[in-house]
Amino acid sequence: MNTLSLNQKTINGSTLAEAVSACVRAGITSIGVWREPLHDHGVQAGAALIADAGLHVSSLCRGGFFTAPDRTAVLVENRRAIEETAALGADCLVLVVGGLPPGSRDLPAARARVADVLADLVPCAADHGVRLALEPMNPLYCADRGVLSTLSQALDLAEEHDPAAVGVVVDTFHVWWDPDLETQIARAADRIASFQVCDWITPLPADALLARGVMGDGHIDFHHIADLVAKAGYTGAVEVEIFNADLWREDPDTVLATVVRRFAEHVLL
Amino acid sequence: MNTLSLNQKTINGSTLAEAVSACVRAGITSIGVWREPLHDHGVQAGAALIADAGLHVSSLCRGGFFTAPDRTAVLVENRRAIEETAALGADCLVLVVGGLPPGSRDLPAARARVADVLADLVPCAADHGVRLALEPMNPLYCADRGVLSTLSQALDLAEEHDPAAVGVVVDTFHVWWDPDLETQIARAADRIASFQVCDWITPLPADALLARGVMGDGHIDFHHIADLVAKAGYTGAVEVEIFNADLWREDPDTVLATVVRRFAEHVLL
Repeated sequence: MNTLSLNQKTINGSTLAEAVSACVRAGITSIGVWREPLHDHGVQAGAALIADAGLHVSSLCRGGFFTAPDRTAVLVENRRAIEETAALGADCLVLVVGGLPPGSRDLPAARARVADVLADLVPCAADHGVRLALEPMNPLYCADRGVLSTLSQALDLAEEHDPAAVGVVVDTFHVWWDPDLETQIARAADRIASFQVCDWITPLPADALLARGVMGDGHIDFHHIADLVAKAGYTGAVEVEIFNADLWREDPDTVLATVVRRFAEHVLL
Repeated sequence: MNTLSLNQKTINGSTLAEAVSACVRAGITSIGVWREPLHDHGVQAGAALIADAGLHVSSLCRGGFFTAPDRTAVLVENRRAIEETAALGADCLVLVVGGLPPGSRDLPAARARVADVLADLVPCAADHGVRLALEPMNPLYCADRGVLSTLSQALDLAEEHDPAAVGVVVDTFHVWWDPDLETQIARAADRIASFQVCDWITPLPADALLARGVMGDGHIDFHHIADLVAKAGYTGAVEVEIFNADLWREDPDTVLATVVRRFAEHVLL
């Protein structure tokens, strides 16, 4: 599990072309792509750009938002995301499943909806040879971004389907606090479709969405979690995905130099 | 489970005497007391003040912070809190167990420390006829306030001890997202020492500590959780505890009128 992959979000101000160039300059050989900058570049052209640069695509971010009121629109949009994942040859399509629908307080219903929409999308993913990756999110985001709150819950859902079609994301920011983490990462085994890292920093920044820190700036024991993930059999890339307003104001090459150094110090086993 | 109790924190700017008077004016018959305003008034005088007003004390908030580096100081302070709980005749002493020690990323060690300090305090609690109430906290606070993150984890700890000496707090803000909530509240049964309510609001306010809302302003289904707690056999008071900077700027009588109304609308079964 030695390969660092740069999730584009870490240098959010950069275009896809700029992010690809920055990776090449930094010696980073894998990238996690976001759909918006991919669309800005064009999907086929973007796939060619990345391939020509010799980069591996560890994930496409993101599909999901299954709990949105217009189910047909959700299915259309996610099928498009599946096609894009196939076009990039990405390891998986990361799914942020969505929070409570507007005006609803019915959490069990929202969770049932996620299971239901997932089942509808699996055949499309299988047809395209794409792996869907359910991302359990820190309960901090339960209301507005992701009603899947634990790895256990994500695995319960994933295990209804072929492991080639549905896996899970282990993101340190989302799961580090889980008292059941050791057991659930071992259980996840070949369901681990993506391993993402960033730190939990305190005090939590004012915008909860941008509350993530560079590895080493916060409270997470990355070696411990990386070791659990490695023992579970995961050998894929480790994506560094950091939503942080301060970081986004810095020069991308400087950010990548920091990321490479901190990855070696805090994550690499 | 019909009794509303006002946790003092909901009108944080008020002294103990002011809070007691406000409860009496609002027809609220139970109060959750905080140690700092109690100390300001004097413990014995405060106990007499509350008793003379005919108020029941549903909890003393708070003991805990077991993970602080100076273990002796932790034990001294918590024993004092136990004595104060006995002096008030409060239903329980709420324990916020503490986050990671300064500079530490060893979450399993911090959790082991909590179990260990708890075991040291139980005889003192039993001697005083005081019930300790372990509060699992939203993972939002795992790093800096409470390494107990789920009801299941709190119950694992509590069940090492006599139910009369160690129970748990069910606080909607902390547990509402838990996929295992139904099972764990049923399991808690007579371990439920305190039931606290406030809402989860979005976007999360800038100060995560003050991120709580009045019932009805956010995403929590209080009837569902109150029903689970009632079915588990809990018949005690329901404490309204709201940390919210906007609320703290309002007139306390206005706040209590709102709290009483929202409690009837959103919580009462």
